[in-house]
Amino acid sequence: MSFISIPENSGFPLENLPYGIFSTADKCQPRIGVAIGEHILDLNAVAHLFNGPELKNSQHVLKESTLNSFMGLGPKAWTEARKTLQDLLSTGNKTLEDDIDLRKNALVLQAEATMHLPAKIGDYTDFYSSIIHASNVEEMFRDKDNALMPNWKYLPTRRNDAEPPIFDKCKLLDFELETAFFVGKSNPLGTPVSVEEVDQHIFGMVLMNDWSGRVPKFEKDWSLLPNRQYHFGIMSIRPIQFGKSIFLPNRPAPNFNYMYWTMKQQLVHHTITGCNLQPGDLLGSGTISGPTTDAFGSMLELSWRGTRPVELGDGITRKFILDEDEVIIRGHCERDGLHRIGFGKCTGKVLPAITL
Amino acid sequence: MSFISIPENSGFPLENLPYGIFSTADKCQPRIGVAIGEHILDLNAVAHLFNGPELKNSQHVLKESTLNSFMGLGPKAWTEARKTLQDLLSTGNKTLEDDIDLRKNALVLQAEATMHLPAKIGDYTDFYSSIIHASNVEEMFRDKDNALMPNWKYLPTRRNDAEPPIFDKCKLLDFELETAFFVGKSNPLGTPVSVEEVDQHIFGMVLMNDWSGRVPKFEKDWSLLPNRQYHFGIMSIRPIQFGKSIFLPNRPAPNFNYMYWTMKQQLVHHTITGCNLQPGDLLGSGTISGPTTDAFGSMLELSWRGTRPVELGDGITRKFILDEDEVIIRGHCERDGLHRIGFGKCTGKVLPAITL
Repeated sequence: MSFISIPENSGFPLENLPYGIFSTADKCQPRIGVAIGEHILDLNAVAHLFNGPELKNSQHVLKESTLNSFMGLGPKAWTEARKTLQDLLSTGNKTLEDDIDLRKNALVLQAEATMHLPAKIGDYTDFYSSIIHASNVEEMFRDKDNALMPNWKYLPTRRNDAEPPIFDKCKLLDFELETAFFVGKSNPLGTPVSVEEVDQHIFGMVLMNDWSGRVPKFEKDWSLLPNRQYHFGIMSIRPIQFGKSIFLPNRPAPNFNYMYWTMKQQLVHHTITGCNLQPGDLLGSGTISGPTTDAFGSMLELSWRGTRPVELGDGITRKFILDEDEVIIRGHCERDGLHRIGFGKCTGKVLPAITL
Repeated sequence: MSFISIPENSGFPLENLPYGIFSTADKCQPRIGVAIGEHILDLNAVAHLFNGPELKNSQHVLKESTLNSFMGLGPKAWTEARKTLQDLLSTGNKTLEDDIDLRKNALVLQAEATMHLPAKIGDYTDFYSSIIHASNVEEMFRDKDNALMPNWKYLPTRRNDAEPPIFDKCKLLDFELETAFFVGKSNPLGTPVSVEEVDQHIFGMVLMNDWSGRVPKFEKDWSLLPNRQYHFGIMSIRPIQFGKSIFLPNRPAPNFNYMYWTMKQQLVHHTITGCNLQPGDLLGSGTISGPTTDAFGSMLELSWRGTRPVELGDGITRKFILDEDEVIIRGHCERDGLHRIGFGKCTGKVLPAITL
């Protein structure tokens, strides 16, 4: 029971206490609050009361304008905070109930508050977890009688058609030769970048190896949970080339010259529905392949899906990348009469997979 | 010409001057450097010499351990920095050339430096811009004679089969009823989260409307540049529910009960190849649909791709969402004998598209 009046069927009883970020007309600074009945408890006003072992030296996280720092403390701190909140708001606890000034300062009506985004959201992933929704969509766009794709019920899998799916380490590791560019100046949310001003947002270019674990067709087709093909956690990149892009090379190696879509088109396309970009965002070209079979930008293509082993000399061949292999990508721009503009080298060595 | 010796065919002449982040054995703090020949110019040591109008009050950005702040200043500052660097390193400019102590402090051999990630990378997008690569991959996985999908050469498009593609505002705006959860405690890069410890990383849940612009099959199938279906820049979410998930509701509305994949499976799946999560990362469920036609979680399903108009009362019908429509999503958990745990309401109103 709480000493605060809670309407019957309120979604916010003492057992709930959800966190949010709010502001009020008289205090425009967004701050952390906890819903209780029709009120919000302002944690800024009561942070000094969180004196358990997990939070007594971290009360500042309760005074921030997003929940990120509090989120990062982990479950012991969350549990302690919840216990403190339930105690503070319970009938019989006089700390808040009997302190008229503190109550006036700490309790705000939800109707008088404006809610804000509760956290600075870093990465965002959307799954596809509803079997009913997935069946509906596949039925609409594909085939009524075979609505749910056969791979939908499997987490990352390897198999050939003759065997049931298994969960295992990647057996088809690949590199992807790419360039990427860093976003410099940001654009406001909702404001597309025009072709005329796109230069102002491209800071510079890097070479990139977009390590890829190739997955069987079974997992790749209509992958439903986000597929793991590209989740190596990090790309290899080196170093930044700043300035106008001078891409007029004359060599038949994988060559940026053959790209169909330019960096400028990519950035404009990326913002056309209002997506905002920030300094440090990285936009990759996708694998760059040249027109001849020795100028392909991935083992997938060089070995034509493993059907044509690639000769590396000394009798060594590869279809895909193996443990302990090192991949080195070099790149430069050149044109008659101009200095060679180099990108240095982008290197990465494959260590054996951790044991699952 | 530079007073620094630059080997012939070096990729790093005075005309290049690429930025990077480096450290050395005797100074382990990563800092901004510029490659010149076989050397790196340490910007930390020469930041005080950037005295043009754009940078004289922002020299601190040159002393940071990533390039993000400098990137964010925009092209006038970049151009001024480049000019200052070229001047400083040019034959005839004595500021650096004749100051033995400064040169010793500011110039480092690349061979003695360790390179680091040049920026804190926020968002990352990979395109698919090489027509040769795309043709190769499609040929391998689909059909040799029709390797390149017909939509590959078009930026975001709308069309029906009888008409050529056009670029236009979204005509099929939809909501998607979802829940999402915020990541609390992070996991180290390369360390998957196990099923046993997954609870420690889930901070809490929110209701989410994942606004979606439906695209024609022409754009959706094998969308090659990232498709714009989900790029509305922001989701509507409200508010945070912290604690153990109690999801045993008894109503035939879109119901989390029917989800095939759980939040715990999603988070474990997301980290299984070593992807690291940070406090504030948001993981959405995907559209939640119930088993009856009135419990579908999107207009796409409720109107069955626009073929069955949905009655809203007073003679009003909708196939998809129109300008000025407001979508309100409410949610709660309940079980006999327990208090109702509410999520509040998640609201959003559609304003007309900006003129393109």
